[in-house]
Order: sequence, then structure tokens, then C-alpha cells
Amino acid sequence: MINVGVLGATGAVGQRFVQLLADHPWFNLQTLTASERSAGKPYGKVVNWRLDAPYPDNVSDLVVTPTTVESVKDCDLVFSALPADVATSLETEIADAGIGVCSNARSHRMDPEVPLVIPEVNPDHLGLIDVQRDRGRGGFIVTNPNCSTIVLALALAPIRSFEFHDVRAATMQAISGAGFAGVSAMDIYDNVIPYIGSEEEKMETETLKIMGKFNGSEVIPAPFRVSASCHRVPVIDGHTIAVWIDVKEPVDEVKKAYANFKSPLSNLPLQPAKAVELLDQSDRPQPRLDRNRGRGMTVSVGRIREGLRFVALGHNTIRGAAGASVLNAELICSKKYL
Amino acid sequence: MINVGVLGATGAVGQRFVQLLADHPWFNLQTLTASERSAGKPYGKVVNWRLDAPYPDNVSDLVVTPTTVESVKDCDLVFSALPADVATSLETEIADAGIGVCSNARSHRMDPEVPLVIPEVNPDHLGLIDVQRDRGRGGFIVTNPNCSTIVLALALAPIRSFEFHDVRAATMQAISGAGFAGVSAMDIYDNVIPYIGSEEEKMETETLKIMGKFNGSEVIPAPFRVSASCHRVPVIDGHTIAVWIDVKEPVDEVKKAYANFKSPLSNLPLQPAKAVELLDQSDRPQPRLDRNRGRGMTVSVGRIREGLRFVALGHNTIRGAAGASVLNAELICSKKYL
Amino acid sequence: MINVGVLGATGAVGQRFVQLLADHPWFNLQTLTASERSAGKPYGKVVNWRLDAPYPDNVSDLVVTPTTVESVKDCDLVFSALPADVATSLETEIADAGIGVCSNARSHRMDPEVPLVIPEVNPDHLGLIDVQRDRGRGGFIVTNPNCSTIVLALALAPIRSFEFHDVRAATMQAISGAGFAGVSAMDIYDNVIPYIGSEEEKMETETLKIMGKFNGSEVIPAPFRVSASCHRVPVIDGHTIAVWIDVKEPVDEVKKAYANFKSPLSNLPLQPAKAVELLDQSDRPQPRLDRNRGRGMTVSVGRIREGLRFVALGHNTIRGAAGASVLNAELICSKKYL
Amino acid sequence: MINVGVLGATGAVGQRFVQLLADHPWFNLQTLTASERSAGKPYGKVVNWRLDAPYPDNVSDLVVTPTTVESVKDCDLVFSALPADVATSLETEIADAGIGVCSNARSHRMDPEVPLVIPEVNPDHLGLIDVQRDRGRGGFIVTNPNCSTIVLALALAPIRSFEFHDVRAATMQAISGAGFAGVSAMDIYDNVIPYIGSEEEKMETETLKIMGKFNGSEVIPAPFRVSASCHRVPVIDGHTIAVWIDVKEPVDEVKKAYANFKSPLSNLPLQPAKAVELLDQSDRPQPRLDRNRGRGMTVSVGRIREGLRFVALGHNTIRGAAGASVLNAELICSKKYL
Repeated sequence: MINVGVLGATGAVGQRFVQLLADHPWFNLQTLTASERSAGKPYGKVVNWRLDAPYPDNVSDLVVTPTTVESVKDCDLVFSALPADVATSLETEIADAGIGVCSNARSHRMDPEVPLVIPEVNPDHLGLIDVQRDRGRGGFIVTNPNCSTIVLALALAPIRSFEFHDVRAATMQAISGAGFAGVSAMDIYDNVIPYIGSEEEKMETETLKIMGKFNGSEVIPAPFRVSASCHRVPVIDGHTIAVWIDVKEPVDEVKKAYANFKSPLSNLPLQPAKAVELLDQSDRPQPRLDRNRGRGMTVSVGRIREGLRFVALGHNTIRGAAGASVLNAELICSKKYL
Repeated sequence: MINVGVLGATGAVGQRFVQLLADHPWFNLQTLTASERSAGKPYGKVVNWRLDAPYPDNVSDLVVTPTTVESVKDCDLVFSALPADVATSLETEIADAGIGVCSNARSHRMDPEVPLVIPEVNPDHLGLIDVQRDRGRGGFIVTNPNCSTIVLALALAPIRSFEFHDVRAATMQAISGAGFAGVSAMDIYDNVIPYIGSEEEKMETETLKIMGKFNGSEVIPAPFRVSASCHRVPVIDGHTIAVWIDVKEPVDEVKKAYANFKSPLSNLPLQPAKAVELLDQSDRPQPRLDRNRGRGMTVSVGRIREGLRFVALGHNTIRGAAGASVLNAELICSKKYL
Repeated sequence: MINVGVLGATGAVGQRFVQLLADHPWFNLQTLTASERSAGKPYGKVVNWRLDAPYPDNVSDLVVTPTTVESVKDCDLVFSALPADVATSLETEIADAGIGVCSNARSHRMDPEVPLVIPEVNPDHLGLIDVQRDRGRGGFIVTNPNCSTIVLALALAPIRSFEFHDVRAATMQAISGAGFAGVSAMDIYDNVIPYIGSEEEKMETETLKIMGKFNGSEVIPAPFRVSASCHRVPVIDGHTIAVWIDVKEPVDEVKKAYANFKSPLSNLPLQPAKAVELLDQSDRPQPRLDRNRGRGMTVSVGRIREGLRFVALGHNTIRGAAGASVLNAELICSKKYL
Repeated sequence: MINVGVLGATGAVGQRFVQLLADHPWFNLQTLTASERSAGKPYGKVVNWRLDAPYPDNVSDLVVTPTTVESVKDCDLVFSALPADVATSLETEIADAGIGVCSNARSHRMDPEVPLVIPEVNPDHLGLIDVQRDRGRGGFIVTNPNCSTIVLALALAPIRSFEFHDVRAATMQAISGAGFAGVSAMDIYDNVIPYIGSEEEKMETETLKIMGKFNGSEVIPAPFRVSASCHRVPVIDGHTIAVWIDVKEPVDEVKKAYANFKSPLSNLPLQPAKAVELLDQSDRPQPRLDRNRGRGMTVSVGRIREGLRFVALGHNTIRGAAGASVLNAELICSKKYL
């Protein structure tokens, strides 16, 4: 068993980490950090559990520690659900101290030596861990993309061998993407908010890094453009994306590519049966009905039609955040980086 | 005063017609038709008023008549909120019987001799009324576009003089667009439905007719393409549309075009102060906050940015349905077609 | 294994039955009935699966049969998710034909010889099965209460030994209680509907039968009164009930009764660890966070305070419908009635 | 014209005050106060207008002042939308400085010398203004009740001549009651929160003061009990209350009392045609359909039935907050206290 911790374990993404790690077959969850205010108390006393998934009783008695390097020094690997302002320096310090960091924070995603990984899309980018180590770092930082970027990049994976130059993506994003207190009810109820800070920029840059080529020392961004328009809608979990892409192949061939898509992964505990699932019905995917496919790790694609247009959907706090990081960690272990 | 009636007065759009016509300065609302079941009873007894606008008491005692030509023979003009299957032949018969028809139904929108009009966009298309009359019709049929088409076409009007070829529109449409019983709560709550029957086709064809050129005898469709992706979201009223358009002008010039846009109309009772209003704030337009601008008749545009991308919004049952028809009727009157 | 079927397997409650029975350790799900229109086709082709729970693939190929006695003649036991108008005679015929019926329909709940059972509350009422058999019936009918009644009756169970005469219950009920198409989005969104047909009457009569005394031949209704006020709120699953009850015991003693409540059941597959769970936090229970406790079979109680007032909550389509029937069937089996 | 100001003009209740006062026939809105951060800037620049009512352009240029006594020294009357912690001392200072205060804050509601007034229920309590003046105060403080208390007290007014001792009230309250940022979307969406801090206590004490007897020097609380259970539901505006009351009169007589209820007011600008309106339909009142009756100032009552039970509804930020204060001010003026 690999000893792991969660940085920022009481927030929306932190709780998802705890949910996914409490009974993990490879990882021993031994450390949960939070703010000074919570430190020293049992997790069960300080967490305000807000997931509809059952609360994992076996972590109730874990005493919360402050969010410091010291707190995680006995961990082999930590998962970071920290806000970006805290994550930037602390993740660096932890990695420099010899510990692996799988981070959901945006801080290091675009660092040239930090892999931005979706296991089914660019597992080879983990080679950047060697680059980090070559520079003398004991541990490493591996990041996963922003929640809507993950859905988009996975939805593009089955057709990446086709030629295309332009991707337009209009998102309809869930409120949980902003954390438990991020969106007030008065703002989103009976409403659409057509703006999410920095979200469009993240989709437009992260996607190109993920789908770029790793040449052994650096990642060359993919040579297409993404233009995003991001909107918040009154949905609890699940980001829906309407996509246009200028592939020239006919609809049937595109559908075939989706139907035939095989995940390159095997034997990772959190890996879904299908990383990308093609739905036939004319009115799918839908967030409430499809977000939990593959225990929240499957991205659903439907409505492939002339244009070329389709609709993609994924669970933003599982596949798009905590689950993404845990799957990265599983890949890292299976590739013997730990 | 012009004597008017409403065909299908008890449904979602029918009630909006009644709301807008009950105190109209030019129109005397004298006839309300509904199903056989309701005929013969006072409107106040048969209507299940579902608008949050106050119920207009002065129509309570109007006795509902069946939806037939006979019922409206004393009207100068009727507004049609009929479903398409009923509208097709009945609207034709009424127009042939010498009565004007302003229809919200889709039945005749694409008929070559029927104008599909938004008063601020293509008022000259009313010339097709003369074409109808030249063929011997006593009355006329004038239609307004589908609700999301109206929002899109009005949002394009201020920049129609720029060159463009491709418009992509991802809609986030309100549940009222499907009528009072059209969407079950279990289907849309905490959900997005990425499909609305025939909606994409309507946006892709109607927009071109509206923005096309009328040469005195027919309308030549505008020479650009619209590609739509239509989605239902949990919003009561107000269709939001994320638009991409390949104009070459810089963002500032586009903004200026919106800021300077002037409606060609004057002195129509329902005409809003601004047909298209440019909103400055980075997170607007929003349906709950902006749908009622101009008493529901203003289309709001915001987030104009590189790409070229913007977000448009309009009230789907007012500007997008009943209000559209009433404004058409006002234009028809002011142009002396009645 | 006991061979079972589901009557009306494609609706909201029918799908919950299928979900709970697809992998049941005691029951072999062999028959699924639906309307004539669906009969003859595989379940997977005719069901429009609307649960967010994963679809159980192993029933996809089961060929749907018409809803008749003939269809279920090889079953030992059937679960009825039929509407009341169909259930009344068909359930009788099936029971007379020697087959056990566990019904969620309201048709026979108040029949003197039909047990209305919640396993943790009145398991002895199953003795009415013997009364049915003594009259010559080969099978039996056993019913479970209306969804809000179940939540109320379970919430009263821990304090039934206290003296009380008057119960007031104000419900806030989920939209799924009306089935998939029962409530239109325009009716319930941003709204409360303070009326649910017959619901108050059901709570006021069924509760007394459930908590009544079975004397070996009939049930004497419990000698208290229930006064209900039923309201629909915009919640997908989970009925919340604000309760006043005139017990004289102090709040602490009442809390102790809840904390000490033990289910009389053992070793039933669907039985939750706690039939009634007392929640400490001042703002619980909440439907979204607590409805899935005990896999949807636990009723949560909180806010016990002077008055005496408390708030109860349960999952209406699991504990309140399909799960209630399945747990009844498990109890029936464990008591050797089958 | 009476010169008035609004204390705390940018929040949820503050914006409602501005909406109601911008064009008031008796009041000249000359002062808007807010936090230090906003002071010195035009209202139109600092307010984040969140009402769906149109923004009143004529106040855009009013320069916001800090929330101090000094700021309002030229006002005859101020309306307070302050939070209780600020209101307690500041309202006292303003009243002592000779200015009238109509406050929506809870700070002084239960002060023995401060009237807690609903104009249609206890207009005579304004006599306490004389008590304040007799003690040497130049101005006065008059308060309106908490939002759910107002709905309850108005709903009881038509039957106050009947004998009763016990009132039970289960509320289903709108999210706007907590202000623009008071409830996070993740907390209330698809949910009910069965707890609102201090709300039950307010309903249980304020109602008795309002319906108490003023003997010329003090108010003797009404001799009945209120027991409340307060719940937040996913509704934007409008508090619904299920009420039980132990009046002995038959349902028909109670209905007659509601139908015959006449407001004692006349000629106040904001006064609705009906203070309490009895709705006949079996499923009314409903917040989305009925909250705007009487421009938000009418309380609707329906479902009067054996028990005695009924359902009441009112707009919480209009009749329940800003509108309540403005109507109080109109009553104060008409009674020549200013």
C-alpha cells in the first residue's frame, strides 16, 4: 500500500478525494489537511459532508493536520485540492521534499516540466516526471486539467487521428464546479450565467498541451485552435459541452471512431469500462441521467451530426477533478514512478 | 379600433397574446377561440392562467368560441397561437375569407408568398402581402419566426452590413418554449436536454429567409450558413444563445455597431426603446435579470469578444412569440395593410 | 430462488423495482409486464430508463409480456407498480390464482383482510395472509403504504409507546412521487404546489391501520388522529415532513427513544442498518443529502424540539414505494409464507 | 413631498426600497447610504441590481453616502434595510436626532416602546410613537415584522375575532429571504433546508405583539400560542405557510370571514386592493403564480378545510420587507405623525 494524503480535504473537491480514497485498494489514506482552524480535530468533526454519496466512516477518526509540508512528510503521494494561490508554492515545496503530488489546482498545469495528464489521452506525458527528476527534484508534480477541459479532451480523443483545425465549444457547466459556496442560489436559480472566470482561457490552452506531442524533453502543443464560450446552468453535477469541429470525415465514420475507441489503460482500479461512451438516443447525453456512468469516470458523447457537431458530457467533480487526479496516481503507480 | 381575435387563447402563447392585447390602444380584443370543450363558456372560467403577469380581468367575461373560420368572421385580424397541425389549413381558410392572420405557428413560415417578419429586421417583406392579394386572397398570412430564431436574427441585425459566411449558435432555451405541459419536471430538473425537435432546422432556414432580400415578388435567402445546437435548460423564460460569427471587424468596431444600432420603427405601441441592447458587464445577459428589458421585447447582447463570439438573450414567449406577432400586426397597421 | 415478476415495469416505480430486483440474492426476476404496446419486445428496447442509478444490463433481454394473469402464472410472487384503476381487479385475480402479490398500488391498502405493512412497524399484520388463505385464496395480497405515510409511520415508530392523540404533518414532497410525467416543469419550477390529490386522506387513514393492533382476525386502527397538509416542492427525490405530536415526554427523552430504536428485523437483504436514524445537526435532515442513507431505506429524523416538533425525511421511490414492497416480500419469505 | 433616505440601499431589501420609492407620490428619495467602500460614488455605479423589476434610472446619479447619522440629517424619514448588528445603535441615534425611522431590521421590533406594525392589522400601535416622544425623542422608530410573521399575521387578521389558542405554522420560505448571497446554490438546489436561524422564535413572539392590545402606553401580547417549523425551499420569492388553528367555527364560516375581510386603510399609495385574498382553486396559493398579487402586497389564502387548516402566501421581500416598511411610512404620514 502507498501512503497518501489529501491537501484541502474539507472542500468540494477534497471531499470527493476522500470518497474515492477511503477504500482504495492501492492507497492508504493516512493524512488529511485543512485550515489551521480544523487542525487537531477528527475529520468527522470538522468536515461538513455535502456529497450525496455516503460518508466513508472509516476516515472519521483521522485527525486533521495543517496544510504544510511537515504534515505530509510521511506520505508517498499527496492529492491537492488546494486553491491556486496556496497551491503554487506549497506543491513545489512538497515535490522538492521528495513526495509525489497529484494536483487538481491550476497553478502548475502550464509549467513546461509539469505533465498535464489524462491517462487515456496522453499517458506518455508522464515522462516529464523524469525531466523533473533530472533537474534534481526528489518527488514530482503531476496535474490534471480543468474540469471542462477534461470532458472536451476526452471527447476529442477518439477522433484525434482525423485532421482538424478548429474546435468551438459552448459549455453548460454545473454549479458544483465552483465549490460548495461558489455560486449563490439567487444568482443561478432560473438563470444562466454566461461567464466563468478564466474558464475559456483554460480550455483554449490546456487542451492543446494535453493533445500535444511529448518529445522526451518537452510538450509541443497540438496545432489546432479551441474557441470556448462558457456558461453556468442550474445543474448540480455534470458539464455538458456543445462542440463544433471541422473534421472532413462523414458522420458515420466519426460515429464509428467513437464506437471503436478503446482506452489504452488496463487494470487501474478507478478506470471505467469505457472512457468515452457513444450514446445512440437522440436526446442524450444528459447530465442527470449520464453523469454517473462508469462511476462518474466515463465521458458520454451523443448527437453526432453534420457540421460536424456533437454533445459531450462528464462528471465535473469526479472525472473532472478528484477522480482525474486519482486515476493519474494509479497510472503513475502502474508505470512504476513510485 | 381594429377588431381582433386570438386562435388558441388558453395555451402558453395564447395567454401571452391575451395579456398583450387586453388593453391594447389599437386593437379591440373581441374573440377568443379554444377547443370545443371550452367553447360557450366565459374565458375566465376555462383558462388556467399560468403567467406571473396579472390576469387581465376585462377579458374574463368574453365567451370562448370554437376554433373555426366562422368564429372569427367579424374580426379584421386574428392572432394564431395554434399548433402547426391545426394551423396549416385553418389559417389558409381564414386568410382566404378576407381576414388578416398574424401567426406564431410554424406552418406557413417558409411558404414563398408568406412574409416571415421581424419588424426591426425586414419590414419590407410585408410586401409579400401584396403578392398574396394579387393572387386573389382577401386577407393575408404574416408569420413571425421561431422563438430562438428571433433572438438570433435580432442579434445579427446590428452587424448585418459586415461580411460573414458562417454563424454557429448554441442555444440554452427556457422550458416555457415547450408550452405549459411540454416538459416534465423529472426531465429537466437538475438537467440539460441537448435536443429540441426541429429547432435546429428552424434556426438554420428561417434566419436566412428573414435576412434575405425581397425583390418585389419573392425573398432570396441570405447567403450565409447557420449551424445550430439547441439545448433545453432549467430556466422558466428567456432563451440564451452563444454565437460565433466570422466577421472580420475588430471587437471594438462590432461593439460600436451594437451601441449605434437604431430600430427603424417609430410609434408602434409594443416597440421597445431598444430592439437590441448592448450590456457592458462581463457576466451579462442573464435570462432572469434581462429577459424583461423593454417589457420583454428587447434582445440583450453581451460578452462580445475575439472569435468573434457573443451571447444574446431574449424573452421567448414575449419577443419570441406573442409579442412578435403583435408587433407584426402593429407594423401591418402602420403600413396601412389593414 | 423465488421466481418473481414486476407488473408495470417501465414506469417510475417499475424501474425502481427492476433496479432492486435485478441482482437480488433471493429473487429471480423472470417476468416484466407492461402495456400491450411494449409486449413482445426486450425490456432494454422498450424501457426509457430515467433513474440516475445504473441500468441493470442483465435484464435487457427479458422479453416484456402483457399485464395479465397469464403472463405471471409461472411466478411465485409478483410486485405491482400498477396504477390503481388497473390494480384493483388484476391483483385480486392473481392472488386468487395462487400467486403472492406485493403491491405498491393503493387499491387494496384499506381492505380489511389485506395487510398494510412496514416490516419494522407492524410485521405481525402479515397474519392477515392466513385470513386470506382461510377464505380459500391460494396466493395473497400484501400492500405497502403511500410514500409519505411510510415516512411518517416509520418516524413515529420509535415513540409509539408514548401516549399521544394528535399528529399534524406538513409534507414537502418530491416531484418523483408523481411519476416521470406527473408534474410539468412549468408547474413546479420556482414554485410550491400546496395540493396533492388524495394524499392527505391516505396519510390520515393508512397511518392508523399500520399502527393499529392485529387481533388475529382483523386490524383495529390506532386511536389517534393524523391531520396532514401536503405540498409539492422542487425536489427530485425525498419527502420531508414537519411533524407536531402531543407526546408529553421531554425532548431529551424523545431523543433517547430515537437513538435507542432498534429494528426488529434481521438478515433481510434490503433492510438498512438503521430503519430510523436520528441526525444531530441543527439543519438536518435534508432530502439531497440524506435521502440515500441506508441505500434509500433509512428514514432520517432531526430537529426534535419543544412542541413537540421534529422533521422526518425518506426516499419516496425507494423506502416509499419499490423498496417498501421488496422489503415486505423479504419479510414474507423469512416468515415462511412462501 | 417628504424627504426620505434608505439605509443600506444596495442589498436585497435595499434594492426593493429603491424600487418602491423611486417614483413614490409622497416621498422624495434623496439619500441612499451604503458601506464606506461605495460612498461618494453614484448609486448606478455601485449597485449590482439583481431584481427582475426594471432598474429605476432616475436614482442612478444619486451619490451614495456612508451609513451614518450625518448622512441622513436632511431627511424627514429613513427606511432601514440594515443588518441587525448595525441597526441597533444607529437607528436609535437617528431617531434621537429627530428623524423618523421605518425599519425592517429585527433590532427594535420587540422593544416595549417601539411599534411593530402591519397597517391592516394594528394601525393603532402607532400610538407608541407618542410614548417615544413623551420620553423626549425627537424622531421615532417604527418597525415591521419578519417576513414570514407578516404573512402569518395578515392571514390571521380576518379570523381574529374567532376564539383560538393554538397556531401551528410550517413555512416553506424563499431563498431571497436570506439576501442575495445568503444561500448557496449547492445548499438549496434539489433540496429543502429545515432550519432558518431565529425564524421560528421571531414568528412565535412577533405575531403576539402585533395582534396584542395597545392600551395607550404599552402592548399586551395576544393570548394565544404560535408554534412554528421553518423550512427553506427552492423558490426565489414568496413564503408559503401551512397553518393549523383551533378555531371552532365551521369551514364555511371561516371562508366567509376571509371573503368579507376589508382592509381598514384608504388612500395609501402602496396599499393593495385586497390585503388578504381568498383563492378558490384547490391548488392555490402558489408562490410563482400568486406572489405578485396586489403588486406583491396581497397575502393569498387558500385550501381552507377541516382541521382547521389553510395555506397562506405572501411576497417576502415586498409585503414581507421593503413594502411593509413603506406602507408603514404611508400610514404614519396619513396619521399626521410626520
